[in-house]
Amino acid sequence: MPGKGRPARGKTLRSVRLVVFDFDGVFTDNRVWSNGRGEEWVCCWRGDGLGLERLRRIGVPAWILSTERHPVVQARARKLGLPVIQGVADKAKALELICKKMKVRPSATAFVGNDINDLPALRRAGLAVLVSNATKEVKDGIKWRFLQTTRPGGRGAVREFCDMIFHARQARRISR
Amino acid sequence: MPGKGRPARGKTLRSVRLVVFDFDGVFTDNRVWSNGRGEEWVCCWRGDGLGLERLRRIGVPAWILSTERHPVVQARARKLGLPVIQGVADKAKALELICKKMKVRPSATAFVGNDINDLPALRRAGLAVLVSNATKEVKDGIKWRFLQTTRPGGRGAVREFCDMIFHARQARRISR
Amino acid sequence: MPGKGRPARGKTLRSVRLVVFDFDGVFTDNRVWSNGRGEEWVCCWRGDGLGLERLRRIGVPAWILSTERHPVVQARARKLGLPVIQGVADKAKALELICKKMKVRPSATAFVGNDINDLPALRRAGLAVLVSNATKEVKDGIKWRFLQTTRPGGRGAVREFCDMIFHARQARRISR
Amino acid sequence: MPGKGRPARGKTLRSVRLVVFDFDGVFTDNRVWSNGRGEEWVCCWRGDGLGLERLRRIGVPAWILSTERHPVVQARARKLGLPVIQGVADKAKALELICKKMKVRPSATAFVGNDINDLPALRRAGLAVLVSNATKEVKDGIKWRFLQTTRPGGRGAVREFCDMIFHARQARRISR
Repeated sequence: MPGKGRPARGKTLRSVRLVVFDFDGVFTDNRVWSNGRGEEWVCCWRGDGLGLERLRRIGVPAWILSTERHPVVQARARKLGLPVIQGVADKAKALELICKKMKVRPSATAFVGNDINDLPALRRAGLAVLVSNATKEVKDGIKWRFLQTTRPGGRGAVREFCDMIFHARQARRISR
Repeated sequence: MPGKGRPARGKTLRSVRLVVFDFDGVFTDNRVWSNGRGEEWVCCWRGDGLGLERLRRIGVPAWILSTERHPVVQARARKLGLPVIQGVADKAKALELICKKMKVRPSATAFVGNDINDLPALRRAGLAVLVSNATKEVKDGIKWRFLQTTRPGGRGAVREFCDMIFHARQARRISR
Repeated sequence: MPGKGRPARGKTLRSVRLVVFDFDGVFTDNRVWSNGRGEEWVCCWRGDGLGLERLRRIGVPAWILSTERHPVVQARARKLGLPVIQGVADKAKALELICKKMKVRPSATAFVGNDINDLPALRRAGLAVLVSNATKEVKDGIKWRFLQTTRPGGRGAVREFCDMIFHARQARRISR
Repeated sequence: MPGKGRPARGKTLRSVRLVVFDFDGVFTDNRVWSNGRGEEWVCCWRGDGLGLERLRRIGVPAWILSTERHPVVQARARKLGLPVIQGVADKAKALELICKKMKVRPSATAFVGNDINDLPALRRAGLAVLVSNATKEVKDGIKWRFLQTTRPGGRGAVREFCDMIFHARQARRISR
């Protein structure tokens, strides 16, 4: 686990009202396939769809936030039925914009990231979620209210976090 | 091995008259490559073809059953010479339809799957086959008449199960 | 190492006058990427080219022999500058045809394969070469004059075998 | 670590004024995806971009040097904003040409490579950088002023070396 802080518990998971995902390295394995015409392919996890469906079922909206502007982000977001904001230099500010639009306090959001350009948003969100293969620098930069998935980006990290939120809610329902 | 039940034995393998395969995560490694035009690629195992050929040789028909409707499923099924049913919400019902069409009892079928949306069909089939990297939830949800491959989906799971059926039949022929 | 026979030694390597390679699982990692238009991609190892260049330098010709007929085999063979025979049911017979054409005895050839349909050619060749991830059945089926690479197909197996031939020749030259 | 020489230290890293990268096996994982029309795809690491951005910020220029001439090299270089020289038989000579053009002594350059055709340039450069999965022959061929990344090519090697240069400079600034 990163930093020296306390990892997030069930209570924190149940308080999440909005999830914002970075794209490259979270929905993808951080690799990009290129051809001679400058076209790009990314590699995603088919099982993520079932996780996002579960978020929808419990009424937790999800967004994608990407620094770079690739047509692949748009294409994948459309396929998954997620709104997307691309080409943002400052992800913390973009996160606040989404919060305002969705009428959710930043402290009630989770941000899922993998690299140093995610640090401002990870710190701004109520819960910082790092994929298992996040860079060391980003792991060292997050000290509290965080959790780390056991699966890497593009290989089940998104699904795993969605399942965690879903099961935390289910557990509460059962214990009532 | 999943659950607490008994794993399937040679006798069970020899009783299989029909094999129905899920597609994503079974014929593929559950990943999907996307480009900016919304086109998709999946990654399959070339060796699966030799396994399906062996099923054909011993007269055990095989089908593909997919929840989602992708052109890639159709394209891959055509290449492998397998009939395919796509866009089914209820895989257990679809399995029964195939059984009726093929005049095989559900108890004489094997269903090969990897994720929670396969659970109804896995429970309906005579033999539930889980690929080695099936999700924990699906492994926990299957308690009896199951087996798990040693190879993951898209990396030899289909071939391995076909070879198991083939060798179980061969063994019977030899022991007679 | 496969079987119970003796692995090939430097002398055997130096006696190889012709190398015939299977394609899928040898030049590739045995995976195939498919899209919705039925087009196929395979994944090869860039370093294989330097190995084949070394074979050329020491005057050992190389061929590709493929059971199935894919445009990708032709395209990759052209890129590597290798002659190719596709769509052959009986690889042992095809190997003999190449031997006749190249005026080399089968006992002076090496055949590199990975799966059960390679067995007849592996047995016909003077030296049977199995990639590290060849199927168990093919490993069990080869008992003598064989070697197994440490690298899997599509990840350096071709390069490794070419380097072995090259260095065996170099060693002889030095020891003279 | 390769050879028997001394690995490079912070001082060496701080003296680097120019970085020249091989392409295949450094920016890529040394694999190539081929289709039936002879088109090629390579697999790169999205995180390399952030590393190259850091080099730019501290004023260390980077070049790509490739033996073979592929449109993918050009396309990827353009995306990353790097100048590229392709189709060079002698990489040491090409490295000297870049040095002359950039007015940097070869001893103040780092060359990053992975295979035997990189040896002349690796020996000519002030610092030889080998990716973690460089071939054994190239590792054995480099004896001094070298370092080896912990990450393989196409999976973070470029990013790791850029980060090393960046942090070595930062450390100096702090200690002043």
